[in-house]
Amino acid sequence: TLIALLAGDGIGPEVTAQARRVLEALAPDLVFEEGAVGGAAYRTQGHPLPPETLALAKRSDAVLFGAVGDPAFDALERAMRPEQAILGLRKGLGLFANLRPAKLFAGLEDASALKPEIARKIDLVIVRELTGDVYFGDKGRGLTRTGLREGHDLMRYDEVEVARIARVGFETARTRRHKLLSVDKANVLETSQLWRDVVNEVARDFPDVALSHMYVDNAAMQLVRDPGQFDTIVTGNLFGDILSDQASMCAGSIGMLPSAALGSSAQGMYEPIHGSAPDIAGQGKANPCAAILSAAMMLRHSLDRADVADRIETAVAAAILAGARTADLGGSMSTDAMGDAIMAQLG
Amino acid sequence: TLIALLAGDGIGPEVTAQARRVLEALAPDLVFEEGAVGGAAYRTQGHPLPPETLALAKRSDAVLFGAVGDPAFDALERAMRPEQAILGLRKGLGLFANLRPAKLFAGLEDASALKPEIARKIDLVIVRELTGDVYFGDKGRGLTRTGLREGHDLMRYDEVEVARIARVGFETARTRRHKLLSVDKANVLETSQLWRDVVNEVARDFPDVALSHMYVDNAAMQLVRDPGQFDTIVTGNLFGDILSDQASMCAGSIGMLPSAALGSSAQGMYEPIHGSAPDIAGQGKANPCAAILSAAMMLRHSLDRADVADRIETAVAAAILAGARTADLGGSMSTDAMGDAIMAQLG
Ligand SMILES: CC(C)[C@H](C(=O)O)[C@@H](O)C(=O)O
Ligand SMILES: CC(C)[C@H](C(=O)O)[C@@H](O)C(=O)O
Repeated sequence: TLIALLAGDGIGPEVTAQARRVLEALAPDLVFEEGAVGGAAYRTQGHPLPPETLALAKRSDAVLFGAVGDPAFDALERAMRPEQAILGLRKGLGLFANLRPAKLFAGLEDASALKPEIARKIDLVIVRELTGDVYFGDKGRGLTRTGLREGHDLMRYDEVEVARIARVGFETARTRRHKLLSVDKANVLETSQLWRDVVNEVARDFPDVALSHMYVDNAAMQLVRDPGQFDTIVTGNLFGDILSDQASMCAGSIGMLPSAALGSSAQGMYEPIHGSAPDIAGQGKANPCAAILSAAMMLRHSLDRADVADRIETAVAAAILAGARTADLGGSMSTDAMGDAIMAQLG
Repeated sequence: TLIALLAGDGIGPEVTAQARRVLEALAPDLVFEEGAVGGAAYRTQGHPLPPETLALAKRSDAVLFGAVGDPAFDALERAMRPEQAILGLRKGLGLFANLRPAKLFAGLEDASALKPEIARKIDLVIVRELTGDVYFGDKGRGLTRTGLREGHDLMRYDEVEVARIARVGFETARTRRHKLLSVDKANVLETSQLWRDVVNEVARDFPDVALSHMYVDNAAMQLVRDPGQFDTIVTGNLFGDILSDQASMCAGSIGMLPSAALGSSAQGMYEPIHGSAPDIAGQGKANPCAAILSAAMMLRHSLDRADVADRIETAVAAAILAGARTADLGGSMSTDAMGDAIMAQLG
């Protein structure tokens, strides 16, 4: 079983090292092969996603991804920026569904800006479409007929793209509380009206799931007012980008939350939702929990080892409950020490 | 001085009645003329924004708007839905700048989902572009070459559209803490890169304002984590729609917050940020504060009567501090009684 380990920039290498350590202990048959990605790859190979990295990802069973982003490259044209590697991998591997669970870890009530009684009720997953929308539509800069500079990006979906992510939404809801909320902006966007129509059509195959719809502005409001009302949320690439980051922060713990990018095969890409955090990179104080929990998602979704995934998730929760805290959680543990604390809980 | 009073649907008539009452007491020279809008107008005239309503709005000095939206018309095609009236008025009157202040009213700490010490620090204004972006670009439904249904909406800005809203952002920041944050998604969108370039260019005319940039996903996160860090935020139509609703809810009081839509003349449109709330319409329990505060914004921005605006804002804050509460704020006062409480504070 081949794992492509793409550690990337900033704290990426530090946090994925801990995830690898946990995996090596619990799944010794995994073979890791490292690939260069992001600013680190641009530095050595002149491209944020070198062909050999994409090839490695393609032949792997799963990709364990750290983080990309490096302020040194902020002035580069868009196509050469470190973050483009993520988009290239999603598209290149056909990973159209992003699963982002958000819940408050017991003991981390202080970390959320929300009142504890509200934050404690958060237990939701956002199913975000990843390979369409305004991210991948025709885009460019140009001049208007009167010579003004303009910029444009086409927001666009077709029914096949919507139906396949809707199915992931319904399937996910089925493993949870059988409630699916689809988020769009159908009062303004034609793309959203197609989205809503197709989601309603797919719903016929899932009579056991209660489907509802909400406008994105209202969803952003409700995620603050009463996040406990949500179970599974399915939405497009752009709205999902915004809402999933918002939901993670409601749960208080950007350093704690993993994500999975899935396609139509078992292959997937797994990454913490946090970024490369250049301000604390190399200092050994990053929180490795999100990377370790991403490894757990990988075991569950790509490697069919839900039992091992459960063990890891339980160990992380137990370590937190026992008081293990990196700096982002108000503590002073190093990245290594947090890894130790989790390993200790694994027994 | 002519005020076009467009009360609209649901609780719109109830809350604007209280705003009118306050205005009649403090600015007796104002002349009100009512116009039909939204579902109410569709019912009687077959269009959510009848030509005579648009004409009335055009010849008025300012528009005081209630709310539109009526579930009875949810199945209508987009162009005939009540909400289209808002878009038609913004475009028809050239109102390209939406000002949405958000702050927590003293005494309403319980209403916010955020911890009181975090919510209390909220004092920001979102300057949202209103007449461009994916709202007004070329849009439609169609078939792909292989016969699949598709939907598309073009996101688009030109430099003139960006520069004029950027100026409103800088001017607004100047009346506050001289800090402007521009929000975009320049790591993915060409539209955002033009946006960022132009905002940076306009910044040269405002050396006294500290400009920074943030991606929209991060902004949605930071608005929950630490909203006190923000002063003035300028952003496009779509991101502004989402972030302004989110910010309002962080401040805890969707029933308390007003908004202004402005163009290049003194004329403007003023409306509560809440919607038509069909579930409580006609029951006399809606909170009129947002409508009354919208009237205050009208006095300040369109009618050059900042002194009267100040009096109204002070009276609303005092009534809240004295314990006046409608149902949305956890109390039991009627719409009328809340109006009385504010009138009493006006002395
Ligand atoms: C880095 C960026 C292109 C990316 C996105 O917008 O998808 C990131 O924000 C994410 O959510 O994974
Ligand atoms: C009703 C809708 C078209 C409108 C918008 O999206 O602009 C509303 O949400 C708003 O923010 O005023």
